Amino acid sequence: MTRILITGASGFVGRHTLEALLAGGPDGAELHATSRAVPAWAPEGAMWHSVDLTDADAARALIEAVRPTHLIHAAWYVTPGRFWTSPENMDWVGATLRLARLFHEAGGRRLVAVGTCAEYADKDGDHLEHEAGPMPGTFYGAAKLATWTALTGYARQVGLSFAWARLFGMYGPYEDGRRLVAQVMDSLDRGLPVDLTDGGQMRDFLAGQDVGAALARLCGSDLVGAVNIASGRPVTLRAMLEELGDLMDARGLLRFGARPRPASEPPRLTGDIGRATRELGWQPALDLREGLALSLAWRRRHAAVSVSEA
Amino acid sequence: MTRILITGASGFVGRHTLEALLAGGPDGAELHATSRAVPAWAPEGAMWHSVDLTDADAARALIEAVRPTHLIHAAWYVTPGRFWTSPENMDWVGATLRLARLFHEAGGRRLVAVGTCAEYADKDGDHLEHEAGPMPGTFYGAAKLATWTALTGYARQVGLSFAWARLFGMYGPYEDGRRLVAQVMDSLDRGLPVDLTDGGQMRDFLAGQDVGAALARLCGSDLVGAVNIASGRPVTLRAMLEELGDLMDARGLLRFGARPRPASEPPRLTGDIGRATRELGWQPALDLREGLALSLAWRRRHAAVSVSEA
Repeated sequence: MTRILITGASGFVGRHTLEALLAGGPDGAELHATSRAVPAWAPEGAMWHSVDLTDADAARALIEAVRPTHLIHAAWYVTPGRFWTSPENMDWVGATLRLARLFHEAGGRRLVAVGTCAEYADKDGDHLEHEAGPMPGTFYGAAKLATWTALTGYARQVGLSFAWARLFGMYGPYEDGRRLVAQVMDSLDRGLPVDLTDGGQMRDFLAGQDVGAALARLCGSDLVGAVNIASGRPVTLRAMLEELGDLMDARGLLRFGARPRPASEPPRLTGDIGRATRELGWQPALDLREGLALSLAWRRRHAAVSVSEA
Repeated sequence: MTRILITGASGFVGRHTLEALLAGGPDGAELHATSRAVPAWAPEGAMWHSVDLTDADAARALIEAVRPTHLIHAAWYVTPGRFWTSPENMDWVGATLRLARLFHEAGGRRLVAVGTCAEYADKDGDHLEHEAGPMPGTFYGAAKLATWTALTGYARQVGLSFAWARLFGMYGPYEDGRRLVAQVMDSLDRGLPVDLTDGGQMRDFLAGQDVGAALARLCGSDLVGAVNIASGRPVTLRAMLEELGDLMDARGLLRFGARPRPASEPPRLTGDIGRATRELGWQPALDLREGLALSLAWRRRHAAVSVSEA
């Protein structure tokens, strides 16, 4: 019996992953989802558990109750604007390592956890998976790299099948309104100008639907180690937002250069997706224009709905 | 008021550090020591707290009670023969990060924590501090490197003064009887032969007294980041044990080559101590022969005493 547990399932990444599994997961698999609170939209087809994973006893009780064979760990502290620097990153390193140990010791076989492009240093080109570290420029990146290091050591030691999905820029349905793409959409929809940096930073943007599909596929695969999950088509921030501006017929409201670029912003943060395409047989289904259009349509339907990333 | 808290104070490193501070710490500093159980030999001059640091509530209560200004964190899972591979390494990553956060948020100013040469990969020469990782060969090494990565990110983020002492091979008074030097001493003292590998591995051995002095000095300094604490005089395992054999007039009992060298044993694991000598003004006081002689004298006096490293 396959029992898949998704943590952080009410968040952006978790929710897309849950939808991908509901749409086309392994036949007969039992789906379990966790978040701090059961969301109003909790779908049929997954059993929901309201759990604070930073609480050791609660995490233990969850694993004992579910006894998952597969764990997709997407939970982390992700409050927009704060997650880069929040001390909660410390708690999530510990909570993640504890959860991995509980999972393995309860018979878990396959762990997929979520990493980040922030584990990479600045580089003039697309990052390959082995290029992470040694010391990321942000606290969030350091905490994720630390988690990856400890989980890798543990998984090798105990013989746990473990993959680490390094995610890059993302946007799409369910995006928190305080994040870049959602914020720009909301402003342009209200006819408000948006002050931006020059936008020359090279980045990678992947639609949430493709992120979810990649994590679901990764869960069912045997791929071990770090793997970049990205579009593989780097763009400048400016090009991405101009695409959105054109889609909304409001390019003129985008004020590039109105704000200075923070010194901490790396000029380029992009990933090579050769490993994901070759070894996972995954590739993005949506290009940037399609993804933005779907995201915009969703946002206009749900503008009044509060979206939680927690 | 300076209040120094030493964790793992009943262990080998912690006890030597406590003695160094008792002998010559900052004037007027209040000393606090923790271990799971209060040891029978607990010295006057330090307040002892019996605490399991992997218990979140107990750690919080400790920090609130002591409110240390300085924290020397030497506690970890160190049971000889098992610490390389034990899942407890996962718990100690989390416990260490939690303690660091509690310490800082309660007004702590200076954190010194204990790292290891196992964070380094194999190399044909002495390691410099920046050469750690990316993925150590042992689970213990990976867990310590992960801890260093997360603590560094945190300390930079919140402005905490933080140093990470990478320790190499050690021996001396209080050494657990299951560790190499102590075990060989005990065997030779009983006239028993000792089966060893060929002993060609290059290593570094530092006396516990010097380890303690280095950590005490580091605590009182402003040095930030990783620093190797080692003798700086690499020797082969064979040369070190022959020194001991000669000291005990029992070299003939050492059977080099009687056991195969494990494939996982790196041929060389030695550290450059330039940073410690230049920036910390520290250097070992004991050479190998002196250190072994003191250790042997201690061991013969206390052979019947059970020594805990926990």
